[in-house]
Amino acid sequence: MTKRIGKQTVRLDSKPRIIKTTSVVGPKEGEGPLKDYFDIILQDDLDGKKSYEKAETSMIYRAVTETIKKANLKEQDIHYLIAGDLLNQLSASNFAARDMDIPFLGLYGACSTMAESLSIASMIMDGGFADHVIAATSSHFSSAERQFRVPLEMGSQRTPTAQWTVTGSGAMLLGKKGDLPYTTYVTVGKIKDYGETDTNDMGSAMAPAAVDTIKQHFQDTNRTPKDYDLIATGDLGSLGKKITQELLKEYGYDMYNNYIDCGDEIFDNEKQKTNCGGSGCGCSAVVACGYIYKNILKGNLKRALLVSTGALMSTTTSLQGESIPGIAHAVSIEFGGK
Amino acid sequence: MTKRIGKQTVRLDSKPRIIKTTSVVGPKEGEGPLKDYFDIILQDDLDGKKSYEKAETSMIYRAVTETIKKANLKEQDIHYLIAGDLLNQLSASNFAARDMDIPFLGLYGACSTMAESLSIASMIMDGGFADHVIAATSSHFSSAERQFRVPLEMGSQRTPTAQWTVTGSGAMLLGKKGDLPYTTYVTVGKIKDYGETDTNDMGSAMAPAAVDTIKQHFQDTNRTPKDYDLIATGDLGSLGKKITQELLKEYGYDMYNNYIDCGDEIFDNEKQKTNCGGSGCGCSAVVACGYIYKNILKGNLKRALLVSTGALMSTTTSLQGESIPGIAHAVSIEFGGK
Repeated sequence: MTKRIGKQTVRLDSKPRIIKTTSVVGPKEGEGPLKDYFDIILQDDLDGKKSYEKAETSMIYRAVTETIKKANLKEQDIHYLIAGDLLNQLSASNFAARDMDIPFLGLYGACSTMAESLSIASMIMDGGFADHVIAATSSHFSSAERQFRVPLEMGSQRTPTAQWTVTGSGAMLLGKKGDLPYTTYVTVGKIKDYGETDTNDMGSAMAPAAVDTIKQHFQDTNRTPKDYDLIATGDLGSLGKKITQELLKEYGYDMYNNYIDCGDEIFDNEKQKTNCGGSGCGCSAVVACGYIYKNILKGNLKRALLVSTGALMSTTTSLQGESIPGIAHAVSIEFGGK
Repeated sequence: MTKRIGKQTVRLDSKPRIIKTTSVVGPKEGEGPLKDYFDIILQDDLDGKKSYEKAETSMIYRAVTETIKKANLKEQDIHYLIAGDLLNQLSASNFAARDMDIPFLGLYGACSTMAESLSIASMIMDGGFADHVIAATSSHFSSAERQFRVPLEMGSQRTPTAQWTVTGSGAMLLGKKGDLPYTTYVTVGKIKDYGETDTNDMGSAMAPAAVDTIKQHFQDTNRTPKDYDLIATGDLGSLGKKITQELLKEYGYDMYNNYIDCGDEIFDNEKQKTNCGGSGCGCSAVVACGYIYKNILKGNLKRALLVSTGALMSTTTSLQGESIPGIAHAVSIEFGGK
């Protein structure tokens, strides 16, 4: 009764439905090109809280509880909440889940978390272990800056390859029934590290992992880029996207027509001064819960491949001279037949 | 085709086998009461590496690769490595997995990680998504002290309720076949926070979560403590263990005969000056992979309940005045019928 396809992919025969999604974003994201797709746009990035960390906790709490409310369910109907974020010890997710009556599984996959949580949630649903599961994640520009880089008050200059951590949280509610978008294949990635050490160039660090997972997904499923209406990597930014396109071309895959990077789309990089684009767990989460899911629901996209990408360094590993390991997981989301 | 039992528990009909385990510990653990159950005892806690963090990475790498070797398998035979640790951004697990050719899912559940990874691994196996999965975790006294508390060089005095982070890594390899111990039920816990703020008293902070998960496991499976030969919480220490016994007594469960806490067992607290006992992800991992698994294999235990417990605070949340949320997950491991 194996559900394995090829080397790294599993098939979800029961088609776990994504029955509701919610995206919550900060003010800057709410002024970007995808603003009309987001459900909740915060007025200020502290959201009335005393710290950026507490604001991030509140954001993921809102994304999850709003999703439950939209589906007319109660917390007790959700069998697992599977979530993680960038903060040390997942404090945004943990403190949000503390106030919910839902069994909790915490994940860390850096910015790959939306696809990681959706992968595990899809397998748990398809395995018959739950009726409803929520996959969620968040990131916050200001909490990430002071944890990973420098305090905002220093006003440090950003390098051309730097990206801007998205303030946002996305939640997806999976269920068993309904004429709704569903997940069909999951390809869990391996960690790839080509020696990049510049933490202000995470697109280059993560691109090899994205390439490896996408290539493996195509080989395992016998699909090509043409089989998708949209392929969306997480947060490679404009430079990482180019590298991914070029590397996949070497493997014979044409990624020049239907491929976007969520980080490259969420801001107007020139106008909003976001250099290579958005990053953070929240980036692919809000683009997937907003832009991608809503376009699938409308029938504009029949088949999309979400490939969230994560850079797995810590400040300690960077200070100890380590390079940046990357990872990417892919989930195929479909609706309306193809 | 639901596999749900009661409110929070799932039944694993295919009985995922735990086919091999490996425990790696530091010198202090190797001098404790359980020393004969550990596979590898390090000579010094730097293990020839340049930092404690690199030593921890090396430790989990050894636990995982040794487990694969024991089973006469190759990395390519392992469909998922599911692991996490206490270091920020899971750097021990991530950097160990970087050197392995295995799809990787990173988790953070603080010291609950062994039961969390075993829970997800068991569901992935039972769902038919993999032939072999490794669940693993690690912790390291010296890397944890400087990240969560104070640098060792300060020689800070420890409070009576403090625990000693275990230097250790445990890995469990799950497979489909063989006359071997297997997992039967998984109860994923909810986060509980009763307001404890003293990060030197994590046993009290985590006890309510342990109580909630154990009680729910009994209610869901219609079992009582008598149905187990051994119930082992993760790292509540001697104080947390007492609180758990007393609280469960109020619910009518007698936990005075067959209940141990891994943190209370791993050191000779008086002689080794470990106050309330061991803690850390590695604590329940090495006790489960060593003492518990080996006693199950020998037939000394026919049914054990592993309840790893985690304290989900970060240094930032504590500095911002937050209390300590706790979580516990339970996995039933059986062999030889009962």
